[in-house]
Amino acid sequence: MTKPFDRVALIGIGLIGSSLAHAMRKHKLAGEITGYARSEATRAKAMEISLVDIVFPTAAETVKDADLVILCSPVGTYGELAREIGPRLSPGAILTDVGSVKGAVVRDVLPHVPRDVNFIPGHPIAGTEQSGPESGFAELFINRWCILTPLPDSDTGAVERLADFWRACGSNVEVMTPEHHDLVLAITSHLPHLIAYNIVSTAADLEEVTSSEVIKYSAGGFRDFTRIAASDPTMWRDVFLNNKDAVLEMLGRFSEDLSALQRAIRWGDGDMLFDVFARSRQIRRGIIEAGQDTASPDFGRGAPKSQ
Amino acid sequence: MTKPFDRVALIGIGLIGSSLAHAMRKHKLAGEITGYARSEATRAKAMEISLVDIVFPTAAETVKDADLVILCSPVGTYGELAREIGPRLSPGAILTDVGSVKGAVVRDVLPHVPRDVNFIPGHPIAGTEQSGPESGFAELFINRWCILTPLPDSDTGAVERLADFWRACGSNVEVMTPEHHDLVLAITSHLPHLIAYNIVSTAADLEEVTSSEVIKYSAGGFRDFTRIAASDPTMWRDVFLNNKDAVLEMLGRFSEDLSALQRAIRWGDGDMLFDVFARSRQIRRGIIEAGQDTASPDFGRGAPKSQ
Repeated sequence: MTKPFDRVALIGIGLIGSSLAHAMRKHKLAGEITGYARSEATRAKAMEISLVDIVFPTAAETVKDADLVILCSPVGTYGELAREIGPRLSPGAILTDVGSVKGAVVRDVLPHVPRDVNFIPGHPIAGTEQSGPESGFAELFINRWCILTPLPDSDTGAVERLADFWRACGSNVEVMTPEHHDLVLAITSHLPHLIAYNIVSTAADLEEVTSSEVIKYSAGGFRDFTRIAASDPTMWRDVFLNNKDAVLEMLGRFSEDLSALQRAIRWGDGDMLFDVFARSRQIRRGIIEAGQDTASPDFGRGAPKSQ
Repeated sequence: MTKPFDRVALIGIGLIGSSLAHAMRKHKLAGEITGYARSEATRAKAMEISLVDIVFPTAAETVKDADLVILCSPVGTYGELAREIGPRLSPGAILTDVGSVKGAVVRDVLPHVPRDVNFIPGHPIAGTEQSGPESGFAELFINRWCILTPLPDSDTGAVERLADFWRACGSNVEVMTPEHHDLVLAITSHLPHLIAYNIVSTAADLEEVTSSEVIKYSAGGFRDFTRIAASDPTMWRDVFLNNKDAVLEMLGRFSEDLSALQRAIRWGDGDMLFDVFARSRQIRRGIIEAGQDTASPDFGRGAPKSQ
């Protein structure tokens, strides 16, 4: 039985790359999987756990003869990688990525892509707070959205082929422009991470409250922010450096709204506080109905629970 | 076998009150449990599910002959309730509460407490985003901290008796001043909730990104904030109105730190971003080691997972 792709090259084998390797194996999507990792330790680990069929120490070797190449490293590395692999890409191949920003990826990668290669940027909205080649699992993409941001001259057949690949991994696929993607993700992902990192940092700097107290009493809400703030720092640095305009726009609105809440607290405006607090329940309900989270209560995972 | 308390009165039977009822039954801590709820629907539900032995439509009736009275309603109701129950409290009884602020509770409740009643404010750092008499479960307090903030003249025997009660429910007990409690909780609980409510509100007001997009792509981080922002609005309004100084202090620091991150993004200072992002992993590690959360990755609870 022929598989959808003969040879898939994973440029980067962290959480997303390694999850894709597992998903491709499970769903028989690739004849062969090659992998590139910058660090020797990661390459050794990938071979040890048989994550891919073969690992290479350079991206150029990894993409040889591949009909699907997926950039899975932090987006700050894409420009240099594209320059390296551009001349080695096979005619007719699909080049895509999994980066959390899309405008900057088009800016950095497109100039290096030969005209006979189909460059279709992509972004699976899926992840955990873990990273590295051992953190992946095949089910990561199930019932999650994958956004593709094809360019105006992208080949529709290639876009459909890539969409089928993601659907085979369990994802729902949506198509939009890179600009709209960056705006949507600025509010649904980038700003939440920035805020989580920030509050953890604020807490760490306090003099009146010790770090051990912050840790001890974290079950009151702080705990959940530290989980998000445990994500890979390099990946997130690159996200903020490469989605500056949209993040600053959303951050401006957030700060404005926070000032209004601050004012309501200072002046004891309970009605205003109640109204803001009450309406967020609606959005929560929408998320549960859309299957993006469950309604079961969370009180610190791993603790015993029964009625 | 005699039980630690003959008659325990729960003034309020939402998430915490109903969880206490289950825990007391499970661990045989009370001869009899009485309950008060303001709304008739809640009282009917409590009787229907046999949550307590008897429910009353007034707090005054509920506390009659109780040797332990626990205020479990939003802290904004405490003053009025204390005025009502004060004259009905039994000599030698312990009066405590589960409110998320402590300074304001002392301010509102103490004036109404007879001198022969032991008033010992308390706060179990435990909860879920759910509310109501059906949301409780006996295990909510296991391995969570309960903070007691006795007054300078509190009877040490009574404090120890109350601490034993919480330990029997599975909690660890810590003693501190009301002022320090309010500062610690401002950063570990109140500010996280305020920020979560705020970002959900910001997202709901966007014009360029629709609510359905926010919901659809919430798995990128936003999802976790909506869970926290699904908590009871009345309870949280009262928290912010009653811990104003500490919350405004923490909010000021948070905003200052956020401005610094904003500036780093605007000027492309990747090193600063990386340093802030990297150090929050340490606090996360501390929380996991302290058993306040697990290290297992979260990618939207309820989704299938296997390696």
